[in-house]
Amino acid sequence: MYGEDRVYKKIEVIGTSKKSIEDAIQTAVSRANTSLEKLSWFEVGEVRGHVGDDGTVSEYQVVLKVAFQLK
Amino acid sequence: MYGEDRVYKKIEVIGTSKKSIEDAIQTAVSRANTSLEKLSWFEVGEVRGHVGDDGTVSEYQVVLKVAFQLK
Amino acid sequence: MYGEDRVYKKIEVIGTSKKSIEDAIQTAVSRANTSLEKLSWFEVGEVRGHVGDDGTVSEYQVVLKVAFQLK
Amino acid sequence: MYGEDRVYKKIEVIGTSKKSIEDAIQTAVSRANTSLEKLSWFEVGEVRGHVGDDGTVSEYQVVLKVAFQLK
Amino acid sequence: MYGEDRVYKKIEVIGTSKKSIEDAIQTAVSRANTSLEKLSWFEVGEVRGHVGDDGTVSEYQVVLKVAFQLK
Amino acid sequence: MYGEDRVYKKIEVIGTSKKSIEDAIQTAVSRANTSLEKLSWFEVGEVRGHVGDDGTVSEYQVVLKVAFQLK
Amino acid sequence: MYGEDRVYKKIEVIGTSKKSIEDAIQTAVSRANTSLEKLSWFEVGEVRGHVGDDGTVSEYQVVLKVAFQLK
Amino acid sequence: MYGEDRVYKKIEVIGTSKKSIEDAIQTAVSRANTSLEKLSWFEVGEVRGHVGDDGTVSEYQVVLKVAFQLK
Amino acid sequence: MYGEDRVYKKIEVIGTSKKSIEDAIQTAVSRANTSLEKLSWFEVGEVRGHVGDDGTVSEYQVVLKVAFQLK
Amino acid sequence: MYGEDRVYKKIEVIGTSKKSIEDAIQTAVSRANTSLEKLSWFEVGEVRGHVGDDGTVSEYQVVLKVAFQLK
Amino acid sequence: MYGEDRVYKKIEVIGTSKKSIEDAIQTAVSRANTSLEKLSWFEVGEVRGHVGDDGTVSEYQVVLKVAFQLK
Amino acid sequence: MYGEDRVYKKIEVIGTSKKSIEDAIQTAVSRANTSLEKLSWFEVGEVRGHVGDDGTVSEYQVVLKVAFQLK
Repeated sequence: MYGEDRVYKKIEVIGTSKKSIEDAIQTAVSRANTSLEKLSWFEVGEVRGHVGDDGTVSEYQVVLKVAFQLK
Repeated sequence: MYGEDRVYKKIEVIGTSKKSIEDAIQTAVSRANTSLEKLSWFEVGEVRGHVGDDGTVSEYQVVLKVAFQLK
Repeated sequence: MYGEDRVYKKIEVIGTSKKSIEDAIQTAVSRANTSLEKLSWFEVGEVRGHVGDDGTVSEYQVVLKVAFQLK
Repeated sequence: MYGEDRVYKKIEVIGTSKKSIEDAIQTAVSRANTSLEKLSWFEVGEVRGHVGDDGTVSEYQVVLKVAFQLK
Repeated sequence: MYGEDRVYKKIEVIGTSKKSIEDAIQTAVSRANTSLEKLSWFEVGEVRGHVGDDGTVSEYQVVLKVAFQLK
Repeated sequence: MYGEDRVYKKIEVIGTSKKSIEDAIQTAVSRANTSLEKLSWFEVGEVRGHVGDDGTVSEYQVVLKVAFQLK
Repeated sequence: MYGEDRVYKKIEVIGTSKKSIEDAIQTAVSRANTSLEKLSWFEVGEVRGHVGDDGTVSEYQVVLKVAFQLK
Repeated sequence: MYGEDRVYKKIEVIGTSKKSIEDAIQTAVSRANTSLEKLSWFEVGEVRGHVGDDGTVSEYQVVLKVAFQLK
Repeated sequence: MYGEDRVYKKIEVIGTSKKSIEDAIQTAVSRANTSLEKLSWFEVGEVRGHVGDDGTVSEYQVVLKVAFQLK
Repeated sequence: MYGEDRVYKKIEVIGTSKKSIEDAIQTAVSRANTSLEKLSWFEVGEVRGHVGDDGTVSEYQVVLKVAFQLK
Repeated sequence: MYGEDRVYKKIEVIGTSKKSIEDAIQTAVSRANTSLEKLSWFEVGEVRGHVGDDGTVSEYQVVLKVAFQLK
Repeated sequence: MYGEDRVYKKIEVIGTSKKSIEDAIQTAVSRANTSLEKLSWFEVGEVRGHVGDDGTVSEYQVVLKVAFQLK
């Protein structure tokens, strides 16, 4: 893989999930994988979330960058 | 919700949990929700933790900001 | 003013306005001024906003810190 | 709106205006709204500008991120 | 101390002193300790100061966060 | 303009205005333009301000860098 | 513990896990605990990961600092 | 060029090269120039690289943002 | 002081001292006060230092910005 | 000293002291000097501390990087 | 050199070059060295550049700080 | 390579060179490769340098992190 010059592109996406931070990451990765080229890696930027009326975390929101190779 | 001028306040809190990062967030959100106004959202700042004598993570410590509307 | 030891407190608030960034700052400053002590200064952190269905900025959201002297 | 998993995409754009910072934001938001999906929100990154020969600000340049939902 | 879930709150304060940075920290800590709960720790953010007419530092201003446990 | 090697210098200034952020930028740009070389561009760093006794913003303070070519 | 002067050292490590962010932290903490002195705490820096051919997160990579007392 | 309102878009790309940092930048710029609109400028974010089995730098990886005008 | 538009300039200087951080600040403030206009305030950026052959701190180096009003 | 290629290593340590920030730096520098190679310089990262039961600063904790030449 | 109190000043400049990042640094250093005091060191801030009509990097622009001793 | 849990360690080093930034990176990488485990990758932090009496760059100093797998 190393040795030939390559170019990658990074896109910033936000995934949400009621369950966990990992699940919010997977939500974003799955969606980006279908509309873009096949992804290589991701980098988490921010972790945020929404609090429901009952005072529990009702949603995790993860801002991440996903990268894929331009061919 | 958008359209009338509103004011929110953000408070910085730290929640701990033996179980997971999500659980430490929920610990802080639950406690802040009772003493402050009803929370709207949260933003994770730092994730830290303590290591026990047996070399395992004994506690997650999550620094987060919680926001609520001033009415 | 300089010369005697003083203590200030900073609070993080968010003001919104349909009109301008300056108006959103004033919204937050006015509200904080009534519930807290008299404010001395403010520092803008983030400027964000909402986009309406017609593609125009429908609301400015300014995150700022306001400071007041603890007496 | 909260409750179902969603994915958003953020794009970095720069708008310019001779008039004001708010107008430069609107310039960028309007243009992004036509070529991309309908925008949800924006976040200001940098505010810069050009100085004309007469020593007055001849142009505001606002770097911002705009976000829209991937459906 | 580690083992039970706890919640801490962080408050941003500014202390001033004619003498030293350490004294400005102590000024802020003493004042916060009386009006808030008993403090656990502090974190220095910024160190600034004022210069008097004779060109000497007439005051140190230390911005710090102080933390205390919510019980 | 591009093609020959040039050198620019950046200076940090603060402008104030009772009216608006844009006016505070113009105040600083006008003053720097007379004492320094003709300015090329500016970059906003911080936006701060003072709150008057009546709880309204009495002054905007904008920290910016201004750049000019060394000839 | 507080009262006598102590010195701590911080080391930067990266742990990986197919399962979760918490598991990647534990992987790094366990490995560092055996080769270094007994660890006291950790601080998470970056969370990244790899995406497999099927578009799912195949690995979490957590960059963290671990601290231990120099005796 | 200054005077009419314009909108630019910034894209984040990564270029690699066995030879030099400048060459890795050119690799990314060339590739982005063909698939996107004609580029105006670039801004380097991170410089990283891979180390080969013989302990020499086998590849430079430069993360950069490239900007082009939306027309 | 507030009310009329003013312009300040900030200059970055480094002061050194064998004695303390405060003394290094004073060294820089004194020197800048003579060559520039009368200073108004300072902001500490970095604190560094040199270690002598005997393993003690032989010099503190404080990077600070000093500000003065342009009249 | 300048002219021949050299390599330095930086290590992150934390020193504590009941007395002052400078003393906490010296505590860390002394300890690092004995276990590592002879140190060349240090850079202060964070300044934190502990608050005792009587509301006074009971300990300064300074996070710093120390550098020494690899020979 | 260490031992007597000294004061340094840092100035921010931008150098450009068609050839390389190192050459853009040298352009700025040479120009600053003639108009200012003799320089001691430099610190690179940003690396940017311009892309020509043929899609190649037509100019490197390096933002750097240069430091010199105030005597 | 992906799939089994691994642990990496990152070390901060500084390499110098009279010739170029790339050469300073190689200087540090070569030295770290002999005293540590075989390196996997590097990340550039800061680029600095020294200016000689003749006003030319006499040395590049590159601060970088190098990473290697703990086995």
